[in-house]
Amino acid sequence: MVAPKVRGFRAGGIWAGIKKRGRKDLALILSDRECTLAGVFTQNTVRAAPVEFDLKRMARGRGRGIVINSGCANACTGRQGLEDTERIVREAERAVGVPTGSLLAASTGVIGERLPTHRIVKALPRLVSALSPSGWLDCAEAMMTTDTHPKLVHTSIGLSSGRINMLGVAKGAGMIEPSMATMLAFMVTDAELSRALLERAIKEAVEASFNAVTVDGEMSTNDTVIALANGASGVRVRRNAGDYRLFSELLTEVARELATMIVRDGEGATKFVEIELKGARSGEEARRGAKRVANSLLVKTAIFGGDPNWGRIMATLGAAGIRFRPERVSIEICGVRIVEDGLATGKVREREAKRRLKRKDVDIVIDLNSGRYSTKVWTTDLSCDYVKINASYRS
Amino acid sequence: MVAPKVRGFRAGGIWAGIKKRGRKDLALILSDRECTLAGVFTQNTVRAAPVEFDLKRMARGRGRGIVINSGCANACTGRQGLEDTERIVREAERAVGVPTGSLLAASTGVIGERLPTHRIVKALPRLVSALSPSGWLDCAEAMMTTDTHPKLVHTSIGLSSGRINMLGVAKGAGMIEPSMATMLAFMVTDAELSRALLERAIKEAVEASFNAVTVDGEMSTNDTVIALANGASGVRVRRNAGDYRLFSELLTEVARELATMIVRDGEGATKFVEIELKGARSGEEARRGAKRVANSLLVKTAIFGGDPNWGRIMATLGAAGIRFRPERVSIEICGVRIVEDGLATGKVREREAKRRLKRKDVDIVIDLNSGRYSTKVWTTDLSCDYVKINASYRS
Repeated sequence: MVAPKVRGFRAGGIWAGIKKRGRKDLALILSDRECTLAGVFTQNTVRAAPVEFDLKRMARGRGRGIVINSGCANACTGRQGLEDTERIVREAERAVGVPTGSLLAASTGVIGERLPTHRIVKALPRLVSALSPSGWLDCAEAMMTTDTHPKLVHTSIGLSSGRINMLGVAKGAGMIEPSMATMLAFMVTDAELSRALLERAIKEAVEASFNAVTVDGEMSTNDTVIALANGASGVRVRRNAGDYRLFSELLTEVARELATMIVRDGEGATKFVEIELKGARSGEEARRGAKRVANSLLVKTAIFGGDPNWGRIMATLGAAGIRFRPERVSIEICGVRIVEDGLATGKVREREAKRRLKRKDVDIVIDLNSGRYSTKVWTTDLSCDYVKINASYRS
Repeated sequence: MVAPKVRGFRAGGIWAGIKKRGRKDLALILSDRECTLAGVFTQNTVRAAPVEFDLKRMARGRGRGIVINSGCANACTGRQGLEDTERIVREAERAVGVPTGSLLAASTGVIGERLPTHRIVKALPRLVSALSPSGWLDCAEAMMTTDTHPKLVHTSIGLSSGRINMLGVAKGAGMIEPSMATMLAFMVTDAELSRALLERAIKEAVEASFNAVTVDGEMSTNDTVIALANGASGVRVRRNAGDYRLFSELLTEVARELATMIVRDGEGATKFVEIELKGARSGEEARRGAKRVANSLLVKTAIFGGDPNWGRIMATLGAAGIRFRPERVSIEICGVRIVEDGLATGKVREREAKRRLKRKDVDIVIDLNSGRYSTKVWTTDLSCDYVKINASYRS
């Protein structure tokens, strides 16, 4: 496989001594020219220092790259935490030789501990030397916390005025849910487009990807999705051409691919679950109902156990605060219709559903038959390993 | 120990063949005279047949007792399920010799399966023979599903015109949360009081007990709390005397005791956790914040692992949609103040909190310092055994 590249971008990741045992923990994404920036950040009231920092810098909508660390979230660290982020970014800007104000920051890891600023600053020259157009896998690796593998997507598409590249890296696992999704994701492209257009595209992409995945219903202090467009391809994406639609779909596809990888790598997950909720009275109710089912511990443990326990799905829907009549509901598990008009369709179908639940990919289709709105969300089962991983995360 | 009794009430529980291996599954509570009734039922849109049945019968506010079964929830069973409940209650009324309309029903167990009505009806004469003033433990046992022990509370109090008795039985485990609490609980007293007064007392009691406990954030199709007052003591509780206050407090105490037993017996629970949220901007926000922390998988698994991971508490509060400033929050775990003004108070205290987290009873006090409202909720940790129990519940 040829290492994926996007014109004008370099990336890298090294071990700076934040994590133990030489695991990569410091990354940099850098463009050789100014980029258009757009981002979506956590809606948690408790925001990490790098999120506060980025929110200010995003005002300009232009920049050159992002310094990322794992192993420490730099959240709940007060004034000192903000100063730490400011210092690291300032030193990184100096090390790569870009003007002050050019870089953003992102952190992930344990909350409430200070960044080892001195160690990070000392490692910056080594990080800069490690930068390479093909350094994306190292970058993705340096973002990992309890992820079991780095997450990287690369694609390209022909627009009317030429071919553009797009690449995304992400880290997930653990706290995965929205309001947006709880994780870090960075998407870079060599297309050229206005800030307004990039903002619109990233909002659409996040809504249909990171906002539709959930592992445990949590929303972190550090959630960050940033898109950088540097225009190095010379291909300009304009609002009124079909090109914007193609660009937006490509960004959504990359975001959805990353979101799916995050769910598949959910802590202790043994199954990937797609839940489609149809026939809701509003889009909001469709989302709420689907999310409630996706986050139900009883549903998730039943799926882990391979039990087509549709009663738990019905009970969870009933507790979701959405409008429907139980006697109209139908439920399909892995293509087997086990509930029709709110009633079980019999033991034969239930046994077949149980057999199909052994699959690693599970899909559940719920039709409320009460309206014309539908949605899909993606989640995992809940295994003993989820509990073990989260009981001992800091130890 | 003398078996607890309440004048004029008999109870009993037997094996009717709904569950396997001779475990008790059918119970009856019966008063020798008409009682005042008051109840609180699930707010789930999907309501089990016995809940629908009781909601109609409660209109009269008078009755003689309750037929209860475990092993089958008789939920999502449609018209047929309602007919099954009607038939069982009718046959039970005949067997004990009370007029039609005298008994209520309650079921708990698997959703979506029909009751073995024939077997239950056949067992009724045996159930009636088993009735006894001291049969409450058998009754509580016949209500159990994944409970590890029967739950029974008995107490008495002297009012101005004499002494009254009160007794409560409950089943919980698994789906425990409100809107009200998810379980069955029946409280009987030999006091005499009006329906309006009993309704007021049970609403107050449920709010301060079952509505303040949560194991997994679920709300079932069958939640039922019913109070029966038969007046056999000849002691009348009136609205305007101090007696009502005493009565109401006694009912709340019994309900809270049962609720606490339910949480302690939560599926796979290794710890009992009290979460107090202080300094909220409204009572609603206090409850929402406390519940969100109590239901957070990341908080619950951290407690299971004995990790004073206050960062997860902060992040969860921030995602709860309540008004507060992170830099004002303080958190105490088992009496150790590990967060002050939103910041960690250091490794020494964290180690001490970690040491104290080894206790079976854990208390967490969160002060938002943003208002004057506070609340307490009770929950458990989340262990591997919770997952195992719920992955194989029906198998």
